[in-house]
Amino acid sequence: MKSNPFLHLVQDSYLFPEITRKKELFLKNNPGAALISLGIGDTTEPLTPFVAEKLREGALALGTKEGYTGYGPAFGIEALRKKISEKIYGNLVAADEIILSDGAKSDLGRLQFLIPAGAKVAIQDPAYPVYVDTSVMTGKSLIYLPCRPENDFFPDLALAKDADVIIFCTPNNPTGQAATREQLETLVRFCQKNQILLIVDAAYAAYIQDPDIPKSIYEIDGAKEVAIEVGSFSKMAGFTGIRLGWTVIPSDLTFEDGRSVKKSWERIASTFFNGPSNLAQLGGVAVLEESIFPINLYMDNARKLKTAISSLGYQAFGGSNAPYIWVKFEGKKSWEIFDLLMEKCHLITTPGSGFGENGEGFVRFSAFTKPDNIQTAIDRLTQNSHRL
Amino acid sequence: MKSNPFLHLVQDSYLFPEITRKKELFLKNNPGAALISLGIGDTTEPLTPFVAEKLREGALALGTKEGYTGYGPAFGIEALRKKISEKIYGNLVAADEIILSDGAKSDLGRLQFLIPAGAKVAIQDPAYPVYVDTSVMTGKSLIYLPCRPENDFFPDLALAKDADVIIFCTPNNPTGQAATREQLETLVRFCQKNQILLIVDAAYAAYIQDPDIPKSIYEIDGAKEVAIEVGSFSKMAGFTGIRLGWTVIPSDLTFEDGRSVKKSWERIASTFFNGPSNLAQLGGVAVLEESIFPINLYMDNARKLKTAISSLGYQAFGGSNAPYIWVKFEGKKSWEIFDLLMEKCHLITTPGSGFGENGEGFVRFSAFTKPDNIQTAIDRLTQNSHRL
Repeated sequence: MKSNPFLHLVQDSYLFPEITRKKELFLKNNPGAALISLGIGDTTEPLTPFVAEKLREGALALGTKEGYTGYGPAFGIEALRKKISEKIYGNLVAADEIILSDGAKSDLGRLQFLIPAGAKVAIQDPAYPVYVDTSVMTGKSLIYLPCRPENDFFPDLALAKDADVIIFCTPNNPTGQAATREQLETLVRFCQKNQILLIVDAAYAAYIQDPDIPKSIYEIDGAKEVAIEVGSFSKMAGFTGIRLGWTVIPSDLTFEDGRSVKKSWERIASTFFNGPSNLAQLGGVAVLEESIFPINLYMDNARKLKTAISSLGYQAFGGSNAPYIWVKFEGKKSWEIFDLLMEKCHLITTPGSGFGENGEGFVRFSAFTKPDNIQTAIDRLTQNSHRL
Repeated sequence: MKSNPFLHLVQDSYLFPEITRKKELFLKNNPGAALISLGIGDTTEPLTPFVAEKLREGALALGTKEGYTGYGPAFGIEALRKKISEKIYGNLVAADEIILSDGAKSDLGRLQFLIPAGAKVAIQDPAYPVYVDTSVMTGKSLIYLPCRPENDFFPDLALAKDADVIIFCTPNNPTGQAATREQLETLVRFCQKNQILLIVDAAYAAYIQDPDIPKSIYEIDGAKEVAIEVGSFSKMAGFTGIRLGWTVIPSDLTFEDGRSVKKSWERIASTFFNGPSNLAQLGGVAVLEESIFPINLYMDNARKLKTAISSLGYQAFGGSNAPYIWVKFEGKKSWEIFDLLMEKCHLITTPGSGFGENGEGFVRFSAFTKPDNIQTAIDRLTQNSHRL
């Protein structure tokens, strides 16, 4: 059989395998080196006792005649859809506009089915590689929107005037920047004016500390006419391994021919997916009942690390409303910085160039680690900064 | 934005909503009627105590510093891949040829990414509607292969000679028939000769009772050159709500240009998906450690129901190696039979015409229910057969 030609337009996943290769080589040459990973965005703190207990109860119930459940409702259990509507969105979106999923990444992939092949998708650069890869593998063309310190990490939207879709991540991975209310208003107006579908990846919304920064695109007037928002329990509640997320599709959102986007999404969700795990959904209800998100520790990590890096004289961005710090090392390329940090400080980071052309010269520090590691990392950076 | 035109080529999902509409109308006119549902394929028996206990332990561990886990390995945990290789396939396929997923339906959707738009996909008729819908929504054209009592439910493969892909479900939903070794050999030879990719949906393989019927396509020589197989814990272990499945992609399988299908699949899986739930995977390991599949009760149901239906003089197929019975009511259309069974016997079934043109005149009885319901259903059928 012929293969799907679009599959071969994406580069082989290079970034993380290359990091692993370099790390293994380094450990071979430096046996016993206590490398600290500030590379990946994976949660490290346990579930809260309340959430773990609810999952335990759910697991036991599945072993009883009375408590057993098979397939859940196609779009997620009603109690969870209602709780998300209420606790995450303050009822700005209705329960039936929230479709549950097994996580943001899966939904970002399935959302590509809404968009015709050949359409133009605009993305921030640097960006989470999944936006590029899912777009290319489904036959879209890309428009890159540079996001740099010089433009306050908010792109020149004029570049996107011919786009059919904008995928916008805020708080941003990898830059750690959260868009301001004014920026989001500009974005929504631009999409309204140019009839562009806006897909907002809000997987890190729970990390926003600044009360003036919107936690959802739906805090902006008119957003329901243009925007889909993807949310996740992964980073908010430590559910990276449990797999639970959602997508909001406002009832009023239509394609240019007047068809309902929500109806199309429901058809996609019920054809390509069978709902998230019932246990994960029980856990999600517990998270929102308790309303305690185990993120303070990561934000403490981020604050300390950013302060230390800044005080060493490097330009550090993000880290205040997101668990990532985006650091510029003047005059060096991303992989050079990566190598230096590994060799001189025994720290693993992620080279910014792996997120796009405009990430060159930066590395991303992740705050997802134990506080002890952060202190050690700061000590190593401080002691070795003259060698970087 | 323009919508994806392929989305509008599929019919609105009609079958199950129409069943619900008819059922609700009937209950409105006949309040208190004790309808029994033999309509859907959802498991009803609890998990075994061992599996429930392992899930409970896993849930508790997620609440501890020592036991917490975030993202799992992209293609599933090694222990589970090994157990599937060993216990399901008797090592006919290697652990690294098995990629874990959140279920057969999601994987059947993602498999469409391997296939270029415009390709010809051949499917059995009648068939699980997801094969048609995922193919159409991704721009494929369809070739229907009639499967009827007259051809022993095995299609005339000559109809598929121009196909790029054949999707083949055995044991079959909805007909309840499992393909014989000879039939599967014919199928593999045909795909080899005509360079057709064969996708086997083996979600019901655990239900095969006849020792002469292969439980996997890989029991057929040469299958690894042409076939992908999709498997699932849903019906085998009552995991419909837990969500766990897998896809086997043999290392030797190549596209016509020599590229590795497995490598493409790994790229798709890691781009459009983030692995199944860690709890679900723990449960899967427990299922295969215990090697007890809670399916005997459903197969007892199927045997009793088929015997009763046959003894009433109807032509009943399947039910011996699958939990579905496919019944022909001479001279009647599927929806007429559905209505009669609901009105005269208070039984809900699934009209065969909902699975394709060649399902017309049949209804599907599902054995997924409590044994008491089966006995009551048999009594009602026996007492009312003169009115059908």
